[in-house]
Amino acid sequence: MGNSFGKIFKLTSFGESHGVALGGIIEGCPSGLELNFDLIQKELDRRKPGQSKLVTQRREDDKVTFLSGIFEGKTTGTPIGFLSENTNQKSQDYDHIKDIYRPSHADFTYDKKYGIRDYRGGGRSSARETVCRVVAGAVAKQLIPNIKINAFVSSVGEIFIDKPYQALDFSLTESNAIRCPDLVTAQKMEDYLKQIKKEGDTVGGTITCVVQNVPVGLGEPVFDKLHAVLGSAMLSINAVKGFEYGSGFCGSRMKGSAHNDLFNPDGTTKSNLSGGIQGGISNGMDIYFRVAFKPVATLMQKQMTIDSQGNPVEMQGKGRHDVCVVPRAVPIVEAMTAMVLADFYLQDRLTRL
Amino acid sequence: MGNSFGKIFKLTSFGESHGVALGGIIEGCPSGLELNFDLIQKELDRRKPGQSKLVTQRREDDKVTFLSGIFEGKTTGTPIGFLSENTNQKSQDYDHIKDIYRPSHADFTYDKKYGIRDYRGGGRSSARETVCRVVAGAVAKQLIPNIKINAFVSSVGEIFIDKPYQALDFSLTESNAIRCPDLVTAQKMEDYLKQIKKEGDTVGGTITCVVQNVPVGLGEPVFDKLHAVLGSAMLSINAVKGFEYGSGFCGSRMKGSAHNDLFNPDGTTKSNLSGGIQGGISNGMDIYFRVAFKPVATLMQKQMTIDSQGNPVEMQGKGRHDVCVVPRAVPIVEAMTAMVLADFYLQDRLTRL
Amino acid sequence: MGNSFGKIFKLTSFGESHGVALGGIIEGCPSGLELNFDLIQKELDRRKPGQSKLVTQRREDDKVTFLSGIFEGKTTGTPIGFLSENTNQKSQDYDHIKDIYRPSHADFTYDKKYGIRDYRGGGRSSARETVCRVVAGAVAKQLIPNIKINAFVSSVGEIFIDKPYQALDFSLTESNAIRCPDLVTAQKMEDYLKQIKKEGDTVGGTITCVVQNVPVGLGEPVFDKLHAVLGSAMLSINAVKGFEYGSGFCGSRMKGSAHNDLFNPDGTTKSNLSGGIQGGISNGMDIYFRVAFKPVATLMQKQMTIDSQGNPVEMQGKGRHDVCVVPRAVPIVEAMTAMVLADFYLQDRLTRL
Amino acid sequence: MGNSFGKIFKLTSFGESHGVALGGIIEGCPSGLELNFDLIQKELDRRKPGQSKLVTQRREDDKVTFLSGIFEGKTTGTPIGFLSENTNQKSQDYDHIKDIYRPSHADFTYDKKYGIRDYRGGGRSSARETVCRVVAGAVAKQLIPNIKINAFVSSVGEIFIDKPYQALDFSLTESNAIRCPDLVTAQKMEDYLKQIKKEGDTVGGTITCVVQNVPVGLGEPVFDKLHAVLGSAMLSINAVKGFEYGSGFCGSRMKGSAHNDLFNPDGTTKSNLSGGIQGGISNGMDIYFRVAFKPVATLMQKQMTIDSQGNPVEMQGKGRHDVCVVPRAVPIVEAMTAMVLADFYLQDRLTRL
Repeated sequence: MGNSFGKIFKLTSFGESHGVALGGIIEGCPSGLELNFDLIQKELDRRKPGQSKLVTQRREDDKVTFLSGIFEGKTTGTPIGFLSENTNQKSQDYDHIKDIYRPSHADFTYDKKYGIRDYRGGGRSSARETVCRVVAGAVAKQLIPNIKINAFVSSVGEIFIDKPYQALDFSLTESNAIRCPDLVTAQKMEDYLKQIKKEGDTVGGTITCVVQNVPVGLGEPVFDKLHAVLGSAMLSINAVKGFEYGSGFCGSRMKGSAHNDLFNPDGTTKSNLSGGIQGGISNGMDIYFRVAFKPVATLMQKQMTIDSQGNPVEMQGKGRHDVCVVPRAVPIVEAMTAMVLADFYLQDRLTRL
Repeated sequence: MGNSFGKIFKLTSFGESHGVALGGIIEGCPSGLELNFDLIQKELDRRKPGQSKLVTQRREDDKVTFLSGIFEGKTTGTPIGFLSENTNQKSQDYDHIKDIYRPSHADFTYDKKYGIRDYRGGGRSSARETVCRVVAGAVAKQLIPNIKINAFVSSVGEIFIDKPYQALDFSLTESNAIRCPDLVTAQKMEDYLKQIKKEGDTVGGTITCVVQNVPVGLGEPVFDKLHAVLGSAMLSINAVKGFEYGSGFCGSRMKGSAHNDLFNPDGTTKSNLSGGIQGGISNGMDIYFRVAFKPVATLMQKQMTIDSQGNPVEMQGKGRHDVCVVPRAVPIVEAMTAMVLADFYLQDRLTRL
Repeated sequence: MGNSFGKIFKLTSFGESHGVALGGIIEGCPSGLELNFDLIQKELDRRKPGQSKLVTQRREDDKVTFLSGIFEGKTTGTPIGFLSENTNQKSQDYDHIKDIYRPSHADFTYDKKYGIRDYRGGGRSSARETVCRVVAGAVAKQLIPNIKINAFVSSVGEIFIDKPYQALDFSLTESNAIRCPDLVTAQKMEDYLKQIKKEGDTVGGTITCVVQNVPVGLGEPVFDKLHAVLGSAMLSINAVKGFEYGSGFCGSRMKGSAHNDLFNPDGTTKSNLSGGIQGGISNGMDIYFRVAFKPVATLMQKQMTIDSQGNPVEMQGKGRHDVCVVPRAVPIVEAMTAMVLADFYLQDRLTRL
Repeated sequence: MGNSFGKIFKLTSFGESHGVALGGIIEGCPSGLELNFDLIQKELDRRKPGQSKLVTQRREDDKVTFLSGIFEGKTTGTPIGFLSENTNQKSQDYDHIKDIYRPSHADFTYDKKYGIRDYRGGGRSSARETVCRVVAGAVAKQLIPNIKINAFVSSVGEIFIDKPYQALDFSLTESNAIRCPDLVTAQKMEDYLKQIKKEGDTVGGTITCVVQNVPVGLGEPVFDKLHAVLGSAMLSINAVKGFEYGSGFCGSRMKGSAHNDLFNPDGTTKSNLSGGIQGGISNGMDIYFRVAFKPVATLMQKQMTIDSQGNPVEMQGKGRHDVCVVPRAVPIVEAMTAMVLADFYLQDRLTRL
């Protein structure tokens, strides 16, 4: 339960932060797809720690080994097994939290639910688990090459991009450590994060994702509406607190006369407050959505907490941690988006006689 | 694909707005549950149209007939089939939209996806489909009687409750047509909706849901985190554009030092920005979340749109439609919440040796 | 759990023998299929009781009502809900077994598993449940019209057809009450069953099914091999005790040099001991398999049994029961076969890029 | 599709015979199970090639590495990833069949279905895939330690054990290369297989499996009847052509008066032609079933076949192959049985309120 994502194009993942390896099985990838392994590694490199001083300085290898399902560079239609070894883990960094429940972490809930947990590095609840998502997402992207998926950091704390996405040049996203395509805002964010880091504090942020060139017809009402599955995908990422698409929460304040998207003769719409989805099915317009991430819970400050017996304990984060999770979460948002769309793309093969 | 919700406690639904009947199958309800059928009907009555002048004056019967899985008033562990006949449909109200794609409705996307659609009353995309959700939710509520689920209207357009939920008396929610437990705000909302109705317009709103007395340990990481499934449940409801839980989008603007929920010795937390969920698993604190609904797309105003050949057409809503969807969506939000929690409650039986 | 069959083309069924109705939901049927409702009723008529003196004289109506998913005679791609009311049940025939565990029935196991059971007519364990299978199978047959599915009674007790299926004329199957296409054998079986009936006894039998014109490539190794799913489908039918395909149990006594099917230049094979399936995937040759049914457990003789307190009780079958189940099981075997093939036919759309 | 087995206790496997590794993910194993790794290896050793001169002399390492889901020797409730590297493959042994379709192998069907295949050692269709089943089965056995599962070779070609299973001493099964607990029969089988081997031929056989001490109540009607899932499990094993349980095909020749199992006052039955299952649910009596395996298709004789262009080709098996598959299939039959029972054992936790 809970380890698989997707119905046809499906990832089942396993692995703890400090176990032998993380990995997964990708099912449902059609046969005959020539894989570009450099692109897969490139996505992993975007996710990995240690890319800048603002993110954790842990240097995870994040190499992936494919074990099956590929023959002479092409998918064979059989399941694609892969793994990424945990080679550079400093488990001793976590000895001090063996019996401690860190505030706003999953220590308490895992312990109460399972009665046992691998406390090292957060175990299964570690964000390192997203390695598997990035691998599967990178395969998914290659399955639907015409669909363009661009995620970027749209806010950090109170600093946000004050332009519509149409005014942005997505090719600039990777040009800075924040992954914000608006360079003036990116600089402000970077300065702000340096300040936060100095304070030993952390901060939240948002990621916006824009998906272009989506064919009409993806999504499976009533329960698997395209945006419901996208929302589930995003909310399953560590630290996510909210999801909105199209007009989102703003839309709840609008009148219908202002909100309705009127049609052009070709079926496109003059406005796009719908966010490219009508009735749970893509309508061919851009899909865009926004994802809220809470601040990282591990602080380089003293905090009071409790141990597993309920005794008060003073603790302070050790090891290497991000000041803000959103820059590194950009490729994860893209990966999950790609998986959702690849899955619906395949499901849609089943729609008509 | 897309007609089932839940893994153990599972609803599979069928039905179009103007077909013979809607209905569903509830699987996974354990044997031996004595059902209170009055409570089920009460939930259906909360959902049904025609309850006030602000909501649609369609008078759907919304009676449910149980067909199986119940013997002498108790569940038997076999699937519970049920249906609700479509007795009072005015299909002719929809003749004028047979070949028309209404703006911000699902007409265009259903037509393009399936190549055929039952245009009467929106067919499968009609909100009437939620009857089935309410039935299953009412059963789910009886399976987990200790868990208290209270949803209410927290905003309509720009009017919102400006108090924390702890200051509200949920017993007042049903006392007014808006389903807003803050009576002063409720009155403002009602006045506002009357105005909107006069204009032939519609407006959006939000619903907040508070879940209390949840046992620790519900939720199945990594992909079926409790909030990910709740989010998916909410986003699958018609007209929903966004979901946030705990600190939500606000949390993305906060610092970690302010956001972390510090523990009390008994494992409860001093604050609850986490919204009762840590690492995807309930921690025993209140779960609360907010759902954004867009304005109803059918206006009693003239709008330009296109027909299926792309010709421009002027149209105006006929029939009986809501001015604002949130009052009637309150029981649906509760129903989906109950289904999610009942499902995770059963799944959690499988956790430990 | 246990109420659904199929992955893409999927039936979820509900209903007890003496409840309000049986029914189901067919998901995954593509849009645009024009349904022939007469063919569906014809299949139901083949299954229904009371067709001859050798089968039960209960006169179930076995009318099906479609509730959704069909518009103007064509499937719309949305779920197809249907039901068949229980109109002619004589529940009082079962009062005498309310607290009795009939030998070789499911009374004891249902009671022990669920702690409650609808004892009337066997409840959920009644063969009346197969009505839903026949409906779904009749839709499936129409989805794959080129594939020819012919089941027939190949043995009753010790009497069996001593010819290869290639020597049979399947158009004669429906010409006699036994559904045996070899008319001489059919007559012997009929005489034998009359004798058995006179004794108040019952007898078992086998059904052979031949599937022709199957495209190459159906089946999903490694766990969903075509024959594994066919086997599961057959074994899920009431009273089935065994399944074999191709050379079957005979094949286990053969040498490889005699068993291997050598290829013709066009990829067909000179022999077909494989039964049309290699490695779990159809190879285009005829698929054939055999299904063993045990004798009906309800006898018109006195038998000793126990009540729910373990007290010895003498009982004798009342009501209307079959002497031998195989004649009426022929359409059920065909229905399950059609569902399996329709499902794999759709799944195979996902195989290649 | 097709790579997972089980609903709660679930194996998803990957891997080709000559790829980097085979492996899988076991989901649904409850937390807190202390694993005995020696028992797991022992099961793998029973399956591995090269155990006697009658089975293939390939020396696969068949070591398993667990990658996750286990902490300090106990399961944590998170997914258990594992792999078994392909260390001793002689891929060049298969160069000669690169473009050849071997008779009664899966070469033709895989090629036609997927358009590409890893021909080395049979790729995904290789019986080496059963390594993963044995690993998962060995974990399942430890989850249900009270249930006793004993499979053994009951026939090879025309030689069979002519005793009821109650007359056998299962502790002798592992005492001989055939895995036949009747030592006189075992010797005959061994002599016979030596003769077959000399001829360069192969032969089929059957395995019987007896499951004792099964709790009442396992199985999920109507589609997941205990025997239907057992049958599917067995039929998914390479080379299996048939499955019967209890009275099986013999039962189809019997009268009801002889076949019914009459009750003792304690709910056990005087006879057990039902094979421990009534209505798809275990009744506490022994479950027993029989599985038919075809002869190995690879012969050490010359055979005519075709290449992928349909040209006739003469071929002869190279490499290392079994004369008869049943001795090595015994642990696989047990493993699949254990997985089925562990899954139903967990599912049954969901039955009652």
